[in-house]
Amino acid sequence: MEKTRHKLWGGRFNKPTDRSVEAFTASITFDRRLAPYDVAGSIAHARMLGRQGIIPSQDAQAIMAGLQTIQKELEEGTFPFREEYEDIHMNVEVRLREHIGDVAGKLHTARSRNDQVALDVRLFLKDKCMETIDGLTGMQGALCELAEKNIDAIIPGYTHLQRAQPVLLAHHLLAYFNMFERDKGRFKDCMIRADEMPLGSGALAGVPYPVDREFLAKELGFSRITLNSMDAVSDRDFIVEYQSAAAIAMVHLSRMAEDVILWSSSEFGFLELDDSYATGSSIMPQKKNPDVAELARGKSGRVVGNLMSILTILKGLPLTYNRDLQEDKEGLFDTVDTLLSSLYVFSGMLTTASFKADAAKEALSRGYLLATDVADYLTAKGLPFREAHEVVGNLVGYAAKRGEELSELTLDEYRQFSSLFADDILGLSVEASIAARDVVGGTAPRQVRKSLSEAKQLLEREP
Amino acid sequence: MEKTRHKLWGGRFNKPTDRSVEAFTASITFDRRLAPYDVAGSIAHARMLGRQGIIPSQDAQAIMAGLQTIQKELEEGTFPFREEYEDIHMNVEVRLREHIGDVAGKLHTARSRNDQVALDVRLFLKDKCMETIDGLTGMQGALCELAEKNIDAIIPGYTHLQRAQPVLLAHHLLAYFNMFERDKGRFKDCMIRADEMPLGSGALAGVPYPVDREFLAKELGFSRITLNSMDAVSDRDFIVEYQSAAAIAMVHLSRMAEDVILWSSSEFGFLELDDSYATGSSIMPQKKNPDVAELARGKSGRVVGNLMSILTILKGLPLTYNRDLQEDKEGLFDTVDTLLSSLYVFSGMLTTASFKADAAKEALSRGYLLATDVADYLTAKGLPFREAHEVVGNLVGYAAKRGEELSELTLDEYRQFSSLFADDILGLSVEASIAARDVVGGTAPRQVRKSLSEAKQLLEREP
Amino acid sequence: MEKTRHKLWGGRFNKPTDRSVEAFTASITFDRRLAPYDVAGSIAHARMLGRQGIIPSQDAQAIMAGLQTIQKELEEGTFPFREEYEDIHMNVEVRLREHIGDVAGKLHTARSRNDQVALDVRLFLKDKCMETIDGLTGMQGALCELAEKNIDAIIPGYTHLQRAQPVLLAHHLLAYFNMFERDKGRFKDCMIRADEMPLGSGALAGVPYPVDREFLAKELGFSRITLNSMDAVSDRDFIVEYQSAAAIAMVHLSRMAEDVILWSSSEFGFLELDDSYATGSSIMPQKKNPDVAELARGKSGRVVGNLMSILTILKGLPLTYNRDLQEDKEGLFDTVDTLLSSLYVFSGMLTTASFKADAAKEALSRGYLLATDVADYLTAKGLPFREAHEVVGNLVGYAAKRGEELSELTLDEYRQFSSLFADDILGLSVEASIAARDVVGGTAPRQVRKSLSEAKQLLEREP
Amino acid sequence: MEKTRHKLWGGRFNKPTDRSVEAFTASITFDRRLAPYDVAGSIAHARMLGRQGIIPSQDAQAIMAGLQTIQKELEEGTFPFREEYEDIHMNVEVRLREHIGDVAGKLHTARSRNDQVALDVRLFLKDKCMETIDGLTGMQGALCELAEKNIDAIIPGYTHLQRAQPVLLAHHLLAYFNMFERDKGRFKDCMIRADEMPLGSGALAGVPYPVDREFLAKELGFSRITLNSMDAVSDRDFIVEYQSAAAIAMVHLSRMAEDVILWSSSEFGFLELDDSYATGSSIMPQKKNPDVAELARGKSGRVVGNLMSILTILKGLPLTYNRDLQEDKEGLFDTVDTLLSSLYVFSGMLTTASFKADAAKEALSRGYLLATDVADYLTAKGLPFREAHEVVGNLVGYAAKRGEELSELTLDEYRQFSSLFADDILGLSVEASIAARDVVGGTAPRQVRKSLSEAKQLLEREP
Repeated sequence: MEKTRHKLWGGRFNKPTDRSVEAFTASITFDRRLAPYDVAGSIAHARMLGRQGIIPSQDAQAIMAGLQTIQKELEEGTFPFREEYEDIHMNVEVRLREHIGDVAGKLHTARSRNDQVALDVRLFLKDKCMETIDGLTGMQGALCELAEKNIDAIIPGYTHLQRAQPVLLAHHLLAYFNMFERDKGRFKDCMIRADEMPLGSGALAGVPYPVDREFLAKELGFSRITLNSMDAVSDRDFIVEYQSAAAIAMVHLSRMAEDVILWSSSEFGFLELDDSYATGSSIMPQKKNPDVAELARGKSGRVVGNLMSILTILKGLPLTYNRDLQEDKEGLFDTVDTLLSSLYVFSGMLTTASFKADAAKEALSRGYLLATDVADYLTAKGLPFREAHEVVGNLVGYAAKRGEELSELTLDEYRQFSSLFADDILGLSVEASIAARDVVGGTAPRQVRKSLSEAKQLLEREP
Repeated sequence: MEKTRHKLWGGRFNKPTDRSVEAFTASITFDRRLAPYDVAGSIAHARMLGRQGIIPSQDAQAIMAGLQTIQKELEEGTFPFREEYEDIHMNVEVRLREHIGDVAGKLHTARSRNDQVALDVRLFLKDKCMETIDGLTGMQGALCELAEKNIDAIIPGYTHLQRAQPVLLAHHLLAYFNMFERDKGRFKDCMIRADEMPLGSGALAGVPYPVDREFLAKELGFSRITLNSMDAVSDRDFIVEYQSAAAIAMVHLSRMAEDVILWSSSEFGFLELDDSYATGSSIMPQKKNPDVAELARGKSGRVVGNLMSILTILKGLPLTYNRDLQEDKEGLFDTVDTLLSSLYVFSGMLTTASFKADAAKEALSRGYLLATDVADYLTAKGLPFREAHEVVGNLVGYAAKRGEELSELTLDEYRQFSSLFADDILGLSVEASIAARDVVGGTAPRQVRKSLSEAKQLLEREP
Repeated sequence: MEKTRHKLWGGRFNKPTDRSVEAFTASITFDRRLAPYDVAGSIAHARMLGRQGIIPSQDAQAIMAGLQTIQKELEEGTFPFREEYEDIHMNVEVRLREHIGDVAGKLHTARSRNDQVALDVRLFLKDKCMETIDGLTGMQGALCELAEKNIDAIIPGYTHLQRAQPVLLAHHLLAYFNMFERDKGRFKDCMIRADEMPLGSGALAGVPYPVDREFLAKELGFSRITLNSMDAVSDRDFIVEYQSAAAIAMVHLSRMAEDVILWSSSEFGFLELDDSYATGSSIMPQKKNPDVAELARGKSGRVVGNLMSILTILKGLPLTYNRDLQEDKEGLFDTVDTLLSSLYVFSGMLTTASFKADAAKEALSRGYLLATDVADYLTAKGLPFREAHEVVGNLVGYAAKRGEELSELTLDEYRQFSSLFADDILGLSVEASIAARDVVGGTAPRQVRKSLSEAKQLLEREP
Repeated sequence: MEKTRHKLWGGRFNKPTDRSVEAFTASITFDRRLAPYDVAGSIAHARMLGRQGIIPSQDAQAIMAGLQTIQKELEEGTFPFREEYEDIHMNVEVRLREHIGDVAGKLHTARSRNDQVALDVRLFLKDKCMETIDGLTGMQGALCELAEKNIDAIIPGYTHLQRAQPVLLAHHLLAYFNMFERDKGRFKDCMIRADEMPLGSGALAGVPYPVDREFLAKELGFSRITLNSMDAVSDRDFIVEYQSAAAIAMVHLSRMAEDVILWSSSEFGFLELDDSYATGSSIMPQKKNPDVAELARGKSGRVVGNLMSILTILKGLPLTYNRDLQEDKEGLFDTVDTLLSSLYVFSGMLTTASFKADAAKEALSRGYLLATDVADYLTAKGLPFREAHEVVGNLVGYAAKRGEELSELTLDEYRQFSSLFADDILGLSVEASIAARDVVGGTAPRQVRKSLSEAKQLLEREP
């Protein structure tokens, strides 16, 4: 019996837990990260217990004082995390007992580790949703900065990685601004749904004490309380929802990473990363590699995997708490850290990168990027678009065979394909093509400047 | 050239597409499902083109009339879907040409298949979000119905699949009600974010025509327009978000399925499925299997897989449109159908099932479900909960060794473990245990009836 | 009772199955694909039953004759698949009864649908493993063909998508050859492990009849029999293993697709796809898109998703058969079809593509691809590699600042960085760099030709 | 320049790497685990360099001596892992320089980190495949032990979690034995495919030195060398294959965990876990929870997620090395540790658990488990199985309505359903049912004892 003495639950057991089982089931190596939330939750709980007369007021005071000591230990890094005490809840409780003696045992009145951990993770997650939104805002700021610095820059827009139509670099960058804006929306929604206080649910059925759950919610900064105790202790939706939103955000990042990697290649050459945001090769002295972008792209796989993990973990679990749920945390922590660090480093990489106008100009001069404009020219003269499209298709085929661009053809050559062509067709230019796309959301400079200005206002409004 | 004639893009090509390539790249076998949305989008587009003078008014009229004929064909099932025409957009356009001649070619003015398919899928998805919310509401109604029918029924509540504390069956069922309520929130958020009209984005850069995008949005029932053309044609967030929400909902269903399967076993025996919602065995004549629940549980894997697919598809794609995106639809369709049918059949299974009170009663009488109440009893007498817990642990150990339940112990036996025990300890009962958990979200009948009543009001308010 | 009459298991049921449940649980829409395997399995079973005297010999004859009629119907496409009969097993049995009357009922002696479906899927899978290996061999052949056609072609080799060192195109292509060779190994291993005959396992416990399982194995072309009946009816390892091998193969394909897409871009320009293997744009007349490669890359997501599905489906299922397992087939079929068609079309795309030597040459002339060779030059002169690396790093930095390549530097300039440089440094060339890598597996022409020749021999040996 | 001095690749860079980038790209926090493999690889490489005269013999000797010192430091735990040196390769190289001075720089001749890390991970993986196979063997041994200890124990076999037919407990356990046997096959195949030595591949193109790759292979215990340098540095198949095999094995474990959890419930009650392998509740004193099984079940999600991660990471990467590949290791390490510890603890849990015969006996007496035997009885009397099945279905329906089991019916009652019933039908028993399934792989005691004996021989043969 001696050896199970330190367990919270040893009463009915006749043998100590096997060492391998202790190691296998322990969570203190990772849930120690929840310590500040755990202690904050316990302080609020103790205050409430005292206030409601569930435990004597002086006991509550003693407990709260002891917990504040622990808070200080945590801040100062002197709190002794001990692996023999299973998890963070027990580490705190044991430490509390060391500080204030047996009255510590009253803290666990009207509470279970099941609702306690639900509380801790929700508090953690709410914080991290805020940080994530900040990180996304930082990335949006970096995009705006790069766009503004190169507000007149033109690059080829691509579909199928084939040059398609000219676009403003700023327009391309703002496409990512919009993605991250949606991401922020998802994290906000996640945070709102997670904003429920679970204490009072006990192990699963609610507690037989006159707890004041609304008071606890207010103390801990929650908007409302959970409404069903069985759901409250088995619900991990907020984790899955964060993981989903993070997976989408990381996929966005992976797409931008791909663009950065392409643009940093010798072949594209539109972007030069700053030396401080690139790395070299241990064997090839000439290399300057876009490692940050590559790693961010790779890390999207990690975050997607974490999402899969939690979905698989939850699949088919009966109500209510099952120990499988302990596996919810490491993946969450990893995803939070991965997303936040990726956003931070990626932002720095963007704001220090240089756009290389010459390479873009060269790329724009080849690849028939104005072919659609020629088709639109014919359409304006009354040809149905489908027919215009076919005329220009033949025209491009003709030019390609001769190794020429459209701008190198003569009017006579144009008119071999349609008599609708007139002098003004020779005035086609990348600039005219861009200016023509003057619809909301289009790449015309007027539109893009307006978008950029609105984007910056948005960031100021919702920092 | 002849053979590429029917392509929308044959102009510059000198050889017909290989047959295997046609089959490999064709999407008409599945995107035909988008036909009604595609035609509705085209009608709005044609109206706008005419209204803005981009094409002559009478041409717009002719196109709209032709499209309405196609709408009728679709409703009547007479529209000829033809595999040689790649996708739904081309099938509609070719058919339109058959109806109204070459003027059909003007419909494609100021539009690309890239923004067209973005529109179609968004229209589809908004509809399906509504249907999904309805399906979830149906499930919630079924839960309320079963709860109400058995409002006094008590079952063991479980943690770790071990009997833990008694709870009301209705309380257990309402836990699922809450899960599905959160699911509805997610689908609503998804729908709100998807509610943006992409037409006018062209292939990627916006269109060089004076299109009225706000008019299009109003015509097609959208709240607002997309704000960046490059984002608009490469964005599939709405699909991932629906898939994520669906994966969570299916995981909820898989958990309820597990409960149903357990309860339908001989060992638990709390639930008897109606014959119309169970199936038998081709070899074992006695079997009555909960196939619906098993399949719903299994189908959660399918939906999780579809989520994984779309995330993997999107990972690392550069802007803007890449043909990989064509792979976005089949998984979405499959997830929508799977989720809707699972919700529908599962609801029917629940409302026809019978609760078996005897089995539950029997289960409640064994397993020391009131042990926590005994600990709370001692706590009320002043013992710190931790000590109370240990006393009761020893008590349970003692009883277990004798093969007895707590209710079978004498007061003397109780008092061997703590002198705090008095006569009233013998009055412990399942009913008293439940009634004691009288906090918001707890299992006390008063609370559960209130929750149920609020749940039903919610369903009435938001049908 | 009437209405459940057509069920195989209606005996103990008092109410017909709900229509929605029938639709939800039916599998005939997809498992019809197993029909030929199902009938072949039944013929062998009937032969064995007769041979062992479990049913009268003339009954066995009648059953076998009836099944052969069904085989013919299947081949001729006249077999009536009927949705009201749940699954393929029942469709066959009902049809058999229509052909030969009530004696058909004896076929189900000593057999269950549980072992029957296990048999059918194993037969299907063994066939498909063979086809997949053939498909991979076809792809390897295409790679060899393209390599041989361009045996002297040199391209930049990349790391981090930065030009790194020159390599033979053939060397790059043979890298994929090796990947597909490993894939073939995985499918062979999968096939060997799947090669076990499950009949005789009954529903789960084995059958109480003197069946001859070895005879069945021989009849059906299996190497051995399953050794545990409970495992046999719940095992789906072979499906997961096929799905895993397919996911890896599709990821290989996605990587090659990425290379093809990059090489087909204007920026790289190393490859021109044949018109018959590319598609155009409905709006941009100049476009020639590598859709096949993009779709293959996208389809990797689909196959990865299917793997995820089956893993999630199986997770946490107790023994033995659970209806969840019915969800194993559609994903498998989809993966098989996706992989086979992707391999087939991709092979065609490769063998018709043209290498563009000029673009490659141009690319090789820029990007300091010989920097490693310069470092190796210094190392040969006795400088530790690390120091040589740093010297060349500085040299490249110097040249880059002046916009020059290493080949444009003078000996004097070289010697500013190290006095070890002598005249022969000016003889550095792409060809010399390649030739120097003359180790097994290296890119020297001698090695690559040998590898190619061995690759072709391998294909001839194992067609 | 000063600050990039410690980099392996600083030559061409003008600015130090940003601190956030260093942290983001560093791998030493996790790849330190590869240290012993890295050093072993370097020793072999140095020996080969000297032997081939690529570096002077005495330099090779000095390097080898220095590396042996490092080996000792690693064993004694005194090796200084320093985060400022990026990764394990650089940590070793810097340390070597500290030990032996600048000659250390010669070690990196004819090698790149790209082929070095490929070597390290392969060495690690081969070791871990062996350990994994041992772990699986340990689990198989535990299954045999539990089976042997309870060789006569009978339990209900389940399909759809409904009691189906009686089986021997040993038979059920051996089903898992077979699963793990297949798992071992997969890890063996993985190991065989991974058994290729990649050194000599250089960064991607092979090395321009007369290296002896076969010698290296022999020194390092590899069966053969890689055959294509570009494949060798970008191949991570072995990781995916290990992850796939691990995911299947963990899914097997999750299934057995489900059985253990069910059997440990009060409702089933077939198994009692030893106190040393169970844990309690902090609130409910009576609880004895199967946490080990639950965690193992949950951890299957983690391993599945890791598989998804690596597949997503690899998807769409062009050749050859991309920094994304650095993300391959943490998931692998986590999977290896998770699988090994789960197998170990689970085995211990099994061998200490007690079978509870009474509960099983009770369960066998209810649920019509012999219904199939009754149908088989009628079939033996000449009734087609389908008709027999229906007769027994009606019989069970009749008995169920009266709340009786088949064994409680009189012969008269039997004969109401078929006149084929005679006296001997009353002799039906669980034991007879089991004994009748006397086919290879069936549950008859004779067969199961034989299977168990063969299983044990297998373990002795392949320890």
